[in-house]
Amino acid sequence: MSIDREKFPPLYRTVANNDEGLNSHSYVPNGLDATTSDPLSDRPGANPEQFVGLALSTCLNATLEAIEQRRDMPHTSQVHTIVEMARDRRGFQFYVTAQIKLPGVDQATAEAMVALAESRCPVAKLLGGSDNVRIELVDEFTPVTPVEKR
Amino acid sequence: MSIDREKFPPLYRTVANNDEGLNSHSYVPNGLDATTSDPLSDRPGANPEQFVGLALSTCLNATLEAIEQRRDMPHTSQVHTIVEMARDRRGFQFYVTAQIKLPGVDQATAEAMVALAESRCPVAKLLGGSDNVRIELVDEFTPVTPVEKR
Repeated sequence: MSIDREKFPPLYRTVANNDEGLNSHSYVPNGLDATTSDPLSDRPGANPEQFVGLALSTCLNATLEAIEQRRDMPHTSQVHTIVEMARDRRGFQFYVTAQIKLPGVDQATAEAMVALAESRCPVAKLLGGSDNVRIELVDEFTPVTPVEKR
Repeated sequence: MSIDREKFPPLYRTVANNDEGLNSHSYVPNGLDATTSDPLSDRPGANPEQFVGLALSTCLNATLEAIEQRRDMPHTSQVHTIVEMARDRRGFQFYVTAQIKLPGVDQATAEAMVALAESRCPVAKLLGGSDNVRIELVDEFTPVTPVEKR
């Protein structure tokens, strides 16, 4: 599906910048300014993996919240996105797993809501062409532990 | 290309969470914790659009930095990613435009470096299936102004 800016004109515009590289900072002018660092180093800082996870978790949960509102359901959804980095045939790749919890919602309804959120959330759409991305309904979030260094 | 975790085991793992919805906060446990808000509201806060931009700008510039290093070139690259939000046939969509500046690098070399970065950067790969994403070499960044409210 190609861009049709005439039919769907932008409602909002922002910009996010990195001027110096991985061990520096990335920022939105007059907005979030985050120290960044190489995820394989011990330096504190955010990294592209975390920004991808923040984008998908925030977007999916915003979309679920809208679905809950429309159905007069209480807002209970939570989204945790695990992002892993690995080598690839060229450069690196990320494995992305978004886990959605919908406490108090029966299984069939929850599955329908997850499918709907996936079809509406703009970040899920941007990532939808990648085999490296999974969106799943869970009863409990998977505990996330660092990869052991070899 | 499907995931081959045996051949390419994860080198790094992180998680990013949103537990309360769009007007709350998104966070990495023991890491970045960002207030979030609806981009169409006047509330201060980051949003999914900005997280997508931060991910692509940081990742592309980290990849360009590595290419510069390997070629014994000075690190001059800068990446600004414009993200716009619009309605879609279902829900919303983002238009993503990453602009790359490589000051002091001749045009042919710069174009080759941009193509290489696009093929190696894991965030560019995740977004590569979407027609809504553009990565372009520029002489000057486009000034970014807010969308006028109607």
